[in-house]
Amino acid sequence: MESQQKNVGILSMDIYFPPTCVDQEALEAHDGASKGKYTIGLGQDCMAFCTELEDVISMSLTVVKSLLKKYEINPRLIGRLEVGSETVIDKSKSIKTWLMQIFEEHGNTDIEGVDSTNACYGGTAALFNCVNWVESSSWDGRYGLVVCTDSAVYAEGPARPTGGAAAIAMLIGPNAPIAFESKFRGTHMAHVYDFYKPNLASEYPVVDGKLSQTCYLMALDSCYRRYCSKFEKLEGKQFSISDADYFAFHSPYNKLVQKSFARLYFNDFLRNASSVENDAIEKLEPFSSLSGDESYQSRDLEKVSQLVAKSLYGAKVQPSTLIPKQVGNMYTASLYAAFVSILHSNASTLEGKRVVMFSYGSGLSSTMFSFRFQEGQHPFSLSNIASVLDVSGKLESRHVFLPEKFVETLKLMEHRYGGKDFVTSSDTSLLAPGTFYLTKVDSMYQRYYAQKVGDTATCSAFFIHDNGSLLNGH
Amino acid sequence: MESQQKNVGILSMDIYFPPTCVDQEALEAHDGASKGKYTIGLGQDCMAFCTELEDVISMSLTVVKSLLKKYEINPRLIGRLEVGSETVIDKSKSIKTWLMQIFEEHGNTDIEGVDSTNACYGGTAALFNCVNWVESSSWDGRYGLVVCTDSAVYAEGPARPTGGAAAIAMLIGPNAPIAFESKFRGTHMAHVYDFYKPNLASEYPVVDGKLSQTCYLMALDSCYRRYCSKFEKLEGKQFSISDADYFAFHSPYNKLVQKSFARLYFNDFLRNASSVENDAIEKLEPFSSLSGDESYQSRDLEKVSQLVAKSLYGAKVQPSTLIPKQVGNMYTASLYAAFVSILHSNASTLEGKRVVMFSYGSGLSSTMFSFRFQEGQHPFSLSNIASVLDVSGKLESRHVFLPEKFVETLKLMEHRYGGKDFVTSSDTSLLAPGTFYLTKVDSMYQRYYAQKVGDTATCSAFFIHDNGSLLNGH
Repeated sequence: MESQQKNVGILSMDIYFPPTCVDQEALEAHDGASKGKYTIGLGQDCMAFCTELEDVISMSLTVVKSLLKKYEINPRLIGRLEVGSETVIDKSKSIKTWLMQIFEEHGNTDIEGVDSTNACYGGTAALFNCVNWVESSSWDGRYGLVVCTDSAVYAEGPARPTGGAAAIAMLIGPNAPIAFESKFRGTHMAHVYDFYKPNLASEYPVVDGKLSQTCYLMALDSCYRRYCSKFEKLEGKQFSISDADYFAFHSPYNKLVQKSFARLYFNDFLRNASSVENDAIEKLEPFSSLSGDESYQSRDLEKVSQLVAKSLYGAKVQPSTLIPKQVGNMYTASLYAAFVSILHSNASTLEGKRVVMFSYGSGLSSTMFSFRFQEGQHPFSLSNIASVLDVSGKLESRHVFLPEKFVETLKLMEHRYGGKDFVTSSDTSLLAPGTFYLTKVDSMYQRYYAQKVGDTATCSAFFIHDNGSLLNGH
Repeated sequence: MESQQKNVGILSMDIYFPPTCVDQEALEAHDGASKGKYTIGLGQDCMAFCTELEDVISMSLTVVKSLLKKYEINPRLIGRLEVGSETVIDKSKSIKTWLMQIFEEHGNTDIEGVDSTNACYGGTAALFNCVNWVESSSWDGRYGLVVCTDSAVYAEGPARPTGGAAAIAMLIGPNAPIAFESKFRGTHMAHVYDFYKPNLASEYPVVDGKLSQTCYLMALDSCYRRYCSKFEKLEGKQFSISDADYFAFHSPYNKLVQKSFARLYFNDFLRNASSVENDAIEKLEPFSSLSGDESYQSRDLEKVSQLVAKSLYGAKVQPSTLIPKQVGNMYTASLYAAFVSILHSNASTLEGKRVVMFSYGSGLSSTMFSFRFQEGQHPFSLSNIASVLDVSGKLESRHVFLPEKFVETLKLMEHRYGGKDFVTSSDTSLLAPGTFYLTKVDSMYQRYYAQKVGDTATCSAFFIHDNGSLLNGH
């Protein structure tokens, strides 16, 4: 029943997030929120956002071009390209077709795959689709490429600080340093209205924050039970959080990640797993008889379980939280940004280790799955991936905007969303060389992008350049 | 390199289209178009449309419930469910999550897959994803289920008669009577603005009809060349249209299907294929030196190639045209409705035969692929599938509306699209028992559906029933 391709998974990755961001502490003050509401209550440090120059199409052009260049991948060697996104710029034409521009220039139009959609889960669906293709009889020996790209923006109100923006690209193939453990997988899907986007003219979602958090935790429980059950069936022993070195969660805001790991710990306690120490058993005992519903509502359980799980959280989860806390919710890219954070902080010690991933998209779709690390061969080695990702460099070169400027940008974008017949400033001073940006949308809604020219050495590897005269014309 | 699952493909199918339709000849007269413009110029007979009671969610609920019931499939045996659609009711929450209601009732929430999006190609993407899953190492032995669901509506003008509506469900697994020839596949993808939906508040697309037709034919050429090349590499002999018994095309309107098959014939002529007879060679010779671009624009070539391909069209294509001509463009479902038409008309003689499929979605994505038929075991036999599909019964029981009523319905739906806080008439007199329909959209945009009760024998197999009191309350 097995495909003969071994260790199919992620060969390489790159991440892009806008260089423009707002500080959560400053936003807190600006919004008149109580001190610590965003930084401690939500657990967030900073939030990236797109100015009028960037969107999910430009970010994905940027990250795909960057990945191909940095790993020296011939665009003709891509045989499948899948995009996960919930940021709709066009309801029919896929983001994938915009990305085809990169490949058409190299004579490659033979690339399967379109866009996968379900809230923040689309990236995981795209990843599964690409991996399955490599394992299928229709695989033609070329690479798969997965792109997660989203811009998360909210109407004024309590959800606004849970925005963010990023695009992530992942190259897929056999013999990967980040290999799927395809038999261990727990999925939970259901029909709920926790977060959705029925107001088609607006970029903002309709959110029931409390319901969404409960749905997330219920889905987590269900996926974890199924993951454990499959592990136990195949490995003949119980699974507990001790069996994974790292956990990466879909991260709408860090506080929910803290709650989620505590919830897994509580699951282990209820299952009498060896991961739970004696003093923790004592502290959790009073909650053992709670019904499922009661347990999701109990603030005491939340506090106690977070407390007893704290040191394990520091070791197994903390390394994944850097980018999600600094960039914010990246929707489909959030889970993979958490994963990138682990690669960034621990690349040299990952060999042989396991990371458990939890993907959640409202509506709802969720899956728990896992990867095993192996060092891999250059350029697809963990150390090279960490170096290419250059997370510190990207975070350090950002421009922190005042909250007023952030709010003003969102106001402008409310008018621009779904609009036509406008030009952007094309002021690329804040963008890094190689970044794509929107120059105009014409009267037929057709979108025009350019790429910021870099230094000559960098430039020669890019395929599309600024048309200087056009841009200077504005 | 091969998966060990053999003959993965379509085990069973069902189709649903609204019982409400408008006659193209009557619409022609109503619109003041020249006689024959829709019926001969477009080649269409009739067009189905959704009234206020139906939409892509209700149609997909109807067809999935119907397939499970008619083939007696336990909902717990579905392990993956993928939806292809370009009709956006919510930009984040997938149609798949609405369908989860059917499975949640049976305790099955462990179903992978979300929605695939790129114009009319989403259904093919969903189908490929499901088939690859069955061939992958993460397959758990259960069935895949693919749903194509769309409602095609256009603003007043020349494109309006090219609408339609339908939902198709396909059960996927190994040892299928309709098995993929996975190694023969030609794909062509590119970035174009031939048809797109950038006006998010409107259900109507932006269409460049002439460009879209040229893009379609160019994509067809490219896919056919790649399909032939793969065939020849693996089989060691040239492929020509003689090697396929049937062709099914994505069918926006029948005239384009006629042109498409003639185009394949012209390709065979240029490749000196054995399928082209001597008198045809003589007639096509004057066009042999046209450039690609010239050949797409030449009306003479179009006429001559259609003429010389006419008898082959009758044998290999005509059987696929019934439903597309009667129901109209069904977007993601169109190609599979063409395929269903072949099953309907020729089920008893398909054993061992090959059908070549051409899927096209604007923007653009396209693939040519093929199936081989084998009779299969009941209930997954070609004869049973044809009987379950009951195409004649469904076509005959339709209600033909006057064009005025059709136009009035579209006007109402322009206001309803993306709207909230309304109830429908819930007048289900025209719907068949078992059909799902929209009852209301509340102030939070949440949508409520009910199922029309059938006779008792039918009813017992359904899982969700009308709440009579609720419905009578309006």
